[in-house]
Amino acid sequence: MAMSPKNEHPVRAFGWAATDSSGHLSPFKFSRRATGEKDVTFKVLYCGICHSDLHNVKNEWGITSYPVVPGHEIVGVVTEVGTKVTKFKVGDKVGVGCMVGSCHSCANCKDHLENYCPKMILTYGAKYYDGTTTYGGYSDIMVSDEHFVIKIPDNVPLDGGAPLLCAGITVYSPLKYYELDKVGTHLGVVGLGGLGHMAVKFAKAMGLKVTVISTSPNKKKEAMDHLGADAFLVSRNTEEMELAMGTMDGIIDTVSAVHALLPLIGLLKTNGKLVMVGAPEKPLELLAFPLLMGRKIVGGSCIGGIKETQEMIDFAAKHNIVADIELIPMNSVNTAMERLLKADVKYRFVIDIASSLKPF
Amino acid sequence: MAMSPKNEHPVRAFGWAATDSSGHLSPFKFSRRATGEKDVTFKVLYCGICHSDLHNVKNEWGITSYPVVPGHEIVGVVTEVGTKVTKFKVGDKVGVGCMVGSCHSCANCKDHLENYCPKMILTYGAKYYDGTTTYGGYSDIMVSDEHFVIKIPDNVPLDGGAPLLCAGITVYSPLKYYELDKVGTHLGVVGLGGLGHMAVKFAKAMGLKVTVISTSPNKKKEAMDHLGADAFLVSRNTEEMELAMGTMDGIIDTVSAVHALLPLIGLLKTNGKLVMVGAPEKPLELLAFPLLMGRKIVGGSCIGGIKETQEMIDFAAKHNIVADIELIPMNSVNTAMERLLKADVKYRFVIDIASSLKPF
Repeated sequence: MAMSPKNEHPVRAFGWAATDSSGHLSPFKFSRRATGEKDVTFKVLYCGICHSDLHNVKNEWGITSYPVVPGHEIVGVVTEVGTKVTKFKVGDKVGVGCMVGSCHSCANCKDHLENYCPKMILTYGAKYYDGTTTYGGYSDIMVSDEHFVIKIPDNVPLDGGAPLLCAGITVYSPLKYYELDKVGTHLGVVGLGGLGHMAVKFAKAMGLKVTVISTSPNKKKEAMDHLGADAFLVSRNTEEMELAMGTMDGIIDTVSAVHALLPLIGLLKTNGKLVMVGAPEKPLELLAFPLLMGRKIVGGSCIGGIKETQEMIDFAAKHNIVADIELIPMNSVNTAMERLLKADVKYRFVIDIASSLKPF
Repeated sequence: MAMSPKNEHPVRAFGWAATDSSGHLSPFKFSRRATGEKDVTFKVLYCGICHSDLHNVKNEWGITSYPVVPGHEIVGVVTEVGTKVTKFKVGDKVGVGCMVGSCHSCANCKDHLENYCPKMILTYGAKYYDGTTTYGGYSDIMVSDEHFVIKIPDNVPLDGGAPLLCAGITVYSPLKYYELDKVGTHLGVVGLGGLGHMAVKFAKAMGLKVTVISTSPNKKKEAMDHLGADAFLVSRNTEEMELAMGTMDGIIDTVSAVHALLPLIGLLKTNGKLVMVGAPEKPLELLAFPLLMGRKIVGGSCIGGIKETQEMIDFAAKHNIVADIELIPMNSVNTAMERLLKADVKYRFVIDIASSLKPF
């Protein structure tokens, strides 16, 4: 018989979990494994709230097994390291993103793309090597194989830095892979939420010309004055969109609702690249002709490998890039989830775990 | 008042034209311009029948203006060159493909991508610089600016070589651009028609592993024994398709009917590329998730630039690549069109213009 989450491992842990598809989160006692040879254990200080946390707690992708402790933008300070750990020591500032395991032997793993490993183990709600369930960062402590632990540079504030581990790498990786990171490249960013605002920041730091494309004209001032975008297009304004046709080298499309691709493809130059990082559940309509006529592509990208995540956070440190966050206490998480559903956040909620998660 | 096709230019020409959306072709007298300074005039020997000829004569894309003389896989022998022509001389074996003009000043033209120039002039049914209509290769003579004339290497037979000018470059160009031309690359080819059979030939000459994907199991023997494909998948056989999941680096999709992309995306490895060279008129369904999970792309490609077309035909000459053709006389063109509609041809009709087009 499987042991209860509270007793299956030797180390007591607590956090907040959803226990059914209402998605309501409440205090939850569970356990973590003792620090293994290659493990890093750390005290969680902050954890970002990703939109996929919301999908997961409500079982909107149909893959959730309850109870689920969400959170994959986890940062903290190392409290113990295993005997064979080489990269970290007690006191280091570290983070864990979306994954805590992979096979280490497939072509993707060998290519530093653990994120595309067929046996990749998600940080929460997945089965670990030992058969136990993984629990995320809405919790007091975290333990992970050092391979999946990211070193957070000293000058990165941990609260604003936490969302780099998912939102940050999700937009950084496609900018690199799709070669949209060259100075002077004209990049469109569709959707100005957690992912979109990070895309603008990274793109500007890379020397790109950035145009934000949004349904909301009232985001214009914020996008240009605060985030430093060079231009702003209201996607429903056909005249504005028409004028911008054929001007962009690439687009990072962060929208996870069903939306029209055709106008976005129209914004691209010849050889332009539309990269989706949001995943609408239903199929989108794709007309082949506009792709053919400009040798354009529609591509996807999903987070990034561990090596690239470290590279991303080092880049962020160098360019003082953090997420714009709203810091909340643990007991506001359900309200935060409701507001997230309405996209009422600029631009990422981060839970102040260390000072607000109370044992019970 | 615009002059009649017969009188607008000084040189008498004749060919076969469609005069209405029945698409029925019949003998047609028109005229061609005298050889200009930079023009090459040539006697047409052979002209391939492309599927887009069929779309055009029936006005299926809604852009046809009648009368239309189709044909953009045109080969022949030079009879006259202009005073400033440098690349060709009388007696040369030459060809003209899908285009006869472009702006020569845009970014695409400067990048040898005249095929993506917004002012590209199609070989037939378009307005030339002088305002007159362009007429294609179902005709006795052709005249073109030398920039758009391709030199046909001596060892390329002109009949089987004609389809290289459209079908050949249409599949060669994406293999190069999408970097699917490396030895050992596993390529899928969807649809075994005019484009598909050329894709198999070019891919094999490049050293690729080629799997043909088709709805018709009865094409297997031909694909493997005759064309040299390494494997064959029946797209309706879910078991076969399942076994091939995640095995291909790229796919050249030649199908121009609406079809499912999801199974094809499933066949791709991480970073795999599905390239469409056929253009279904209606939108296809595109699910974002499978693209994200393997950083895959769906791209398009449309013929190729002039420089690359010459490179392609030189490559074809080196590797003895020609189209498999059925040579027909001019007066069989309407029957050929009917058969083409039913995909009843292996794999390209070519009209024996010189010996069967009779003046009237």
